[in-house]
Order: sequence, then structure tokens, then C-alpha cells
Amino acid sequence: MGMMVINPDGVAVRTTMDSTHTNSYSAILSRLTDQARSAIRDLDPLNEVTFIRLRSRKNEILIAPDKEFNLIVVQTPADVESNHAKQSTQ
Amino acid sequence: MGMMVINPDGVAVRTTMDSTHTNSYSAILSRLTDQARSAIRDLDPLNEVTFIRLRSRKNEILIAPDKEFNLIVVQTPADVESNHAKQSTQ
Repeated sequence: MGMMVINPDGVAVRTTMDSTHTNSYSAILSRLTDQARSAIRDLDPLNEVTFIRLRSRKNEILIAPDKEFNLIVVQTPADVESNHAKQSTQ
Repeated sequence: MGMMVINPDGVAVRTTMDSTHTNSYSAILSRLTDQARSAIRDLDPLNEVTFIRLRSRKNEILIAPDKEFNLIVVQTPADVESNHAKQSTQ
């Protein structure tokens, strides 16, 4: 898991993840952030996306889009962690 | 604000919103749900999106994507509501 700061070109300027994950996450999540931003604007031109939370079976992705930079956090939700702990003790 | 159930073709089969909002929200949010689904799958083919929360300045959109149907809830967050209340009493 980890976090990164992405510039307007979709390039990570800070990251705690390895380069492979950083490159794929920054490219894919920058594109999704832009898609979410235009979806909100299509619905209401006077509105603006301020936070995106994407929960999946394996992790949770939090995106704080800003004018200049996007902050992305990838974390393992508590319930997924406890499942892993149970499996490793069986 | 309101809620709707969208079928795989992006058509609302249940809705509490007027038809104009239902048509625009169902079309735009179905597309965004598909984009989120493929973003998660691009990052990890064995993973699957289970919930999307999209916070914007004016409202909060909750999307529970399922195999067959997507449930979409559009709500006004408490802090936005209290701002409206303050403005109307000034």
C-alpha cells in the first residue's frame, strides 16, 4: 500500500511505492480522476469533485484532487487485513 | 437528491428523481462506473470495484456496482446542508 502526489501531467512527484506500482497507479488513477471531474461537471457545470473513494475487494483508493496536484492514498481496509490474519493462522 | 437502480444498459429501472435528472445521472454515472471498474481491473486483473464514493462541493454520490445492476444514491452531505440553513437565516 502507499501514497503518492501526482502533478497535472499524471507524473508522480512524491511516492512511497515502488516505481512499477507508482507508474501504473499514477497513470490509471490520473485518468480516472479526470473522468470523475468531467462527470461531475457534466452533471452540474457549477459543481466540482472534491474527493473520490474507490473501494475494491483487495484495497481502498482515496483520491484528493486539487487544482495543481492529486493526492492518492492506497490502503488495506481493516476487514481485508483481519481476513488475511485469519487465513495465515489456519 | 434521490436514488436509482441502473441496469447493464445504463437505463434506470427504478428512480426517485425526475426524468431529466434520472436520464443525465444514469448515463453519466454508468459510464463513470465502467471507467472505475476497468481502472481497478487494469491495476489488478484479480480485483473488483465494490463501492464508489464521489464527494463534490454540492453533493455526494454513492455507487454500489453489482454484476447486474448499479445502485446510485445522490445525497446532500450534512455540512453542505448546515451551510444552506445558515445562509437562509442571514
